[in-house]
Amino acid sequence: MNYTELTKLLNSYGLALNTMMYDALTIAPKQGAPYRNEAMALLNGEYFKLLTSDESIKVFKEAQNHDDAIIAESAKYTSKEILKIKNIPEKEYVDFVHLTNDSQQAWEDAKSKNDYSLFEDNLIKLIASRKKLMAYREEEQPLYTQLLSDYEDGLTLEKVDDFFEVIKTELVPFIDIVIEAQGDKPDFLTSHVPIEKQKEISKLIMDHLSYSFDFGYLAEAEHPFSSTFSINDTRITTHYKVDDFTSNIFSVIHEVGHSLYNHNVNPKFEGHAVANNMSYSMHESQSRFLENNIGRSKEFWIPIYGKLQAIIPTTLSNISLDEFILGINYVERSAIRTESDELTYPLHILVRYELEKMMFESNETPENLNIKFRDLMKEYIGINVESDDLGILQDVHWSDASFGYFPTYALGSAYAAQFMVQMEKDIPLKSGLMTGDLKPMFIWLKNEVHQYGGFYQADTILNKATNESFNPHHYINYLKEKYSQLLGI
Amino acid sequence: MNYTELTKLLNSYGLALNTMMYDALTIAPKQGAPYRNEAMALLNGEYFKLLTSDESIKVFKEAQNHDDAIIAESAKYTSKEILKIKNIPEKEYVDFVHLTNDSQQAWEDAKSKNDYSLFEDNLIKLIASRKKLMAYREEEQPLYTQLLSDYEDGLTLEKVDDFFEVIKTELVPFIDIVIEAQGDKPDFLTSHVPIEKQKEISKLIMDHLSYSFDFGYLAEAEHPFSSTFSINDTRITTHYKVDDFTSNIFSVIHEVGHSLYNHNVNPKFEGHAVANNMSYSMHESQSRFLENNIGRSKEFWIPIYGKLQAIIPTTLSNISLDEFILGINYVERSAIRTESDELTYPLHILVRYELEKMMFESNETPENLNIKFRDLMKEYIGINVESDDLGILQDVHWSDASFGYFPTYALGSAYAAQFMVQMEKDIPLKSGLMTGDLKPMFIWLKNEVHQYGGFYQADTILNKATNESFNPHHYINYLKEKYSQLLGI
Repeated sequence: MNYTELTKLLNSYGLALNTMMYDALTIAPKQGAPYRNEAMALLNGEYFKLLTSDESIKVFKEAQNHDDAIIAESAKYTSKEILKIKNIPEKEYVDFVHLTNDSQQAWEDAKSKNDYSLFEDNLIKLIASRKKLMAYREEEQPLYTQLLSDYEDGLTLEKVDDFFEVIKTELVPFIDIVIEAQGDKPDFLTSHVPIEKQKEISKLIMDHLSYSFDFGYLAEAEHPFSSTFSINDTRITTHYKVDDFTSNIFSVIHEVGHSLYNHNVNPKFEGHAVANNMSYSMHESQSRFLENNIGRSKEFWIPIYGKLQAIIPTTLSNISLDEFILGINYVERSAIRTESDELTYPLHILVRYELEKMMFESNETPENLNIKFRDLMKEYIGINVESDDLGILQDVHWSDASFGYFPTYALGSAYAAQFMVQMEKDIPLKSGLMTGDLKPMFIWLKNEVHQYGGFYQADTILNKATNESFNPHHYINYLKEKYSQLLGI
Repeated sequence: MNYTELTKLLNSYGLALNTMMYDALTIAPKQGAPYRNEAMALLNGEYFKLLTSDESIKVFKEAQNHDDAIIAESAKYTSKEILKIKNIPEKEYVDFVHLTNDSQQAWEDAKSKNDYSLFEDNLIKLIASRKKLMAYREEEQPLYTQLLSDYEDGLTLEKVDDFFEVIKTELVPFIDIVIEAQGDKPDFLTSHVPIEKQKEISKLIMDHLSYSFDFGYLAEAEHPFSSTFSINDTRITTHYKVDDFTSNIFSVIHEVGHSLYNHNVNPKFEGHAVANNMSYSMHESQSRFLENNIGRSKEFWIPIYGKLQAIIPTTLSNISLDEFILGINYVERSAIRTESDELTYPLHILVRYELEKMMFESNETPENLNIKFRDLMKEYIGINVESDDLGILQDVHWSDASFGYFPTYALGSAYAAQFMVQMEKDIPLKSGLMTGDLKPMFIWLKNEVHQYGGFYQADTILNKATNESFNPHHYINYLKEKYSQLLGI
């Protein structure tokens, strides 16, 4: 096979597995899971066999010198990915897959029974196993740096350390001020809103963001996510909670941010790795930009707040736009990351980051991670986490060995702020939002970020767009300005 | 690979392709179709390469002598399927696939423009190509017999000829009598019913039939179908028309009939060919039994008609149960097969059957099939088909070379009637329906039909269940009795 044939075949497996996963997480009946899981594992095996075959290694090595830069960059990326796994003995890889499967189950049990001891052994094994598999890579970098690079190519520990240092020193004291200045949490946030009404709200939001079912879809899933099948098929999911209608609103905006990124990639990239391999943090920058910088701004809601009120008058007819904006930006010292506000969010990530460093920067077995988690939550967010299900067990990521993933969430928000500073210099962003004309914003994002897919590293994109390397102070400034204005402090 | 490994791998491809197809026909965004179609074609190619490989031929040949009858029967079936395709030169097969793809497009164009000439060449080529490919089979039977057997293993031309002879002589004159005795078509059938209300009706029907999303799902599709992923994942689709709410009702009942058949197969069959390879006509017998014999009976509606009225009072509050039953059994000389009533339905099939015989029983190129179609419609249904989009172009089946498929639709109804005669001897069917207790009926179906999957040929199942080979007179009797009672004739 040549590069094109091989890539197309690999993509076919990828699309099949993606479709099956989207199906499994949205509509697929529970009882079919064992049969489906076995089939997916087999196809996954075929995919990996093909990807790491001698033929494949040769094809992607040669293609790195291709005249077409799209092919050359894609081949470089794929070759690097192959290098990460090709030396792992099959037996060890299979054991690892079994361990992650078992650990998912153990995590679910531990979480539902609020008993960390049911998961602790698995977590320790997962860390050890991850370390062991990484030893097969032909890399020199420290382990945690390698893990960070898995989610953002080129990311360094130093950069992330600097970032979190700024977060820690600047944000932790600022939160005290904000919470002091805030009133009570508004009742409308927990008002009962029937799912049918929330579906109308989803439609309102998607239309306003020009997200169309011609190239997308909105399904329901327990935990919202987006999934890209190809440039012209990139779908989202949401989860409706009758007592928390804004949760759906911001899920939809967030996932549309992801989806439009994939949809606006240079069409010439279709079928090549660079169409999809953007870094996780850059991806998160696009979802968080839309969700927070835009979706929680007053300007965004000016043209559509009346429509939202018309859909749910019982909930919103007595709530002014300003009250609504204060509500959707309400800051709380809360335990759950995914429900946290824009201001405390990065501190949740800081906690995970410090724990991950403990796991991977030393050879010792990490102990009492649940207690350490609670201590850090107390220190940074000022909250007493009462139990482990609301603590270390709240998130799925460690149960499938996705160590190094958490930091991308916070970095994404910081990239978003840096983009916004530049965007406001380049286009009349706020007036566009206020009149409901989002086109200039989307064109800016497409030209400066989306079109490049994964062709460039995150920092290159930042530099090209903002004439500056990553600078976390834009993020801090954005948050401080926003909340100072909101609360008049 | 051994039988188990090979079967599991083949099944994995099958499940992937099935999932992608269900996705494509329900929610997938249009713009992603070209990318998806290419990927599906590639995976399909991998599947066929594996299925027809020397290794596979050997494995399935050996497995025919396996001690486990499930494996032996499955291997026999699969070996037979391989034999049908393995000698076809790849080039010819690829040409055929291209021809069917082009012909789909040509058919759509021709139908939408109501211009048979845009499809005629393709149809003639499809017939010729089908004949040519069949010449590579190592079979002695006449071509049309072979085609019939593709959809029902063991079906003979003689049996089908006899069947349609009875239909022709008995049913054609009876329809005149029924239409004479009937009143006007009731208005409620075309009353406006919002889709949200129709979704509630779907739920009512599925609950009443014990069709659960634990092992199924209801999606929307342009043309309703059911799709089986595994014994515990067998899904249906429907299509909502605001001016024809009973269309959804009978689609749901029909597809549930298909789905429950696959769901009730002996669990030991899971993963083997016999779990899925029941004949098309036997499958259709289960969907049509539920849709027509049960779903259009007064007894079925007695316990739930009040609930239906409560969902759509504007449409049904002034319609008595008897009026409703007359309405859903209203007989019309209409052009469109899929919208036709229980009585004229087999005559639509008769028309297709006679045309297919013309195509495959002679070596001459069939001419003016559209005119012949109109002539036969006039002769058997007594209707002047005004244009070809309402005539020969109305159905998709010939555009993908599915010749021999149509007869299974009518045979299914006839098998259903034969089962019903026996069922009424074995269990108190009507009283069960009247009290809403459908369990005895489903147990009978499971024991006598569903559990066997494709392990036995259709006629064996009929014989085991009814102590009689296929006898079309049960069908005629059923229809005559039903309509005589309904109309008091």
